[in-house]
Amino acid sequence: MSRAPIQFRDSSRISAELFCLTYGSLVAQLLHDYETDEDVTKQLETMGYNIGVRLIEDFLSHTSSPKCQDFTDAMTVVVKDGFRIYLGVVPSLTNWSADAKECSIMIDQNPLTTWVELPENHPRLFYSTLLCGVVRGCLEMVNYRVEAKFVKDVLCGDEATEMRVKLLEVLHDSAPSDD
Amino acid sequence: MSRAPIQFRDSSRISAELFCLTYGSLVAQLLHDYETDEDVTKQLETMGYNIGVRLIEDFLSHTSSPKCQDFTDAMTVVVKDGFRIYLGVVPSLTNWSADAKECSIMIDQNPLTTWVELPENHPRLFYSTLLCGVVRGCLEMVNYRVEAKFVKDVLCGDEATEMRVKLLEVLHDSAPSDD
Repeated sequence: MSRAPIQFRDSSRISAELFCLTYGSLVAQLLHDYETDEDVTKQLETMGYNIGVRLIEDFLSHTSSPKCQDFTDAMTVVVKDGFRIYLGVVPSLTNWSADAKECSIMIDQNPLTTWVELPENHPRLFYSTLLCGVVRGCLEMVNYRVEAKFVKDVLCGDEATEMRVKLLEVLHDSAPSDD
Repeated sequence: MSRAPIQFRDSSRISAELFCLTYGSLVAQLLHDYETDEDVTKQLETMGYNIGVRLIEDFLSHTSSPKCQDFTDAMTVVVKDGFRIYLGVVPSLTNWSADAKECSIMIDQNPLTTWVELPENHPRLFYSTLLCGVVRGCLEMVNYRVEAKFVKDVLCGDEATEMRVKLLEVLHDSAPSDD
């Protein structure tokens, strides 16, 4: 049985352009602050995690979504409702592993990267890694501890933008980890 | 004669919550990087200026707004169309000086500050100063060089959030300054 799209009682929307440019300022500041792309990516992921932990509270307070049955169900809500409500796009959810513990979020339209070109000296920076952290933070608050990272990005010259999400553990309470 | 609201052909909208939290990450990073609130404010203003210079291009490319007749007209477009289209709010434009060179933007609803409380050691940080830079950048690209700064902020305990905008010079070409 497929889920119906969640209705969201929220009229506060801002332009994707302003968001994209503000996010660009954030990434530029981190590139200025940290020596390696790995450190920038790690910082973006941590920031995203902290955002995800807050965003899931907002999501749950505005919706009456039934509790997710399993990881597959939770990932469907993240992609079909979370991305739609917060970013205005609906990626596809594909490449499930046989044990249903790993999948890919394919982001065809990425509002973070309009107008963005990577600087030449950062050819493999996974620019949108904040989103990985957001996904990890949201899922952890509903008891799925995951690893989420980009494995492909059109900004890096890849043919698609793909976030790989791997279930590490099903938790039994919803306390966030301390990072 | 009052202007009709500008129609904007843009369907890309993202949630104000995600924007608010991402902006919070940016401010937190700057507070980590710089020693004084003045330096953080200056950096936010410069980032906003660079955003404004880009945003006005987007605005002009999406609208068929008639050219502004004077500074009063330009400020009306900034407040009634710019804030509405990009931030989803319409502040009021008040407190004009007798020579029509200074005015205040009163921001009753500020999407940047939902969920925000200033840290105790930054009691007079003008948190939303990015917006001052955006206003300055936009206006400079249509030939009005201004100074824009917050003089009151409810986050700081003031009764209102007020951005004061002062016209410094009417330019004769639209080249941005080099900051």
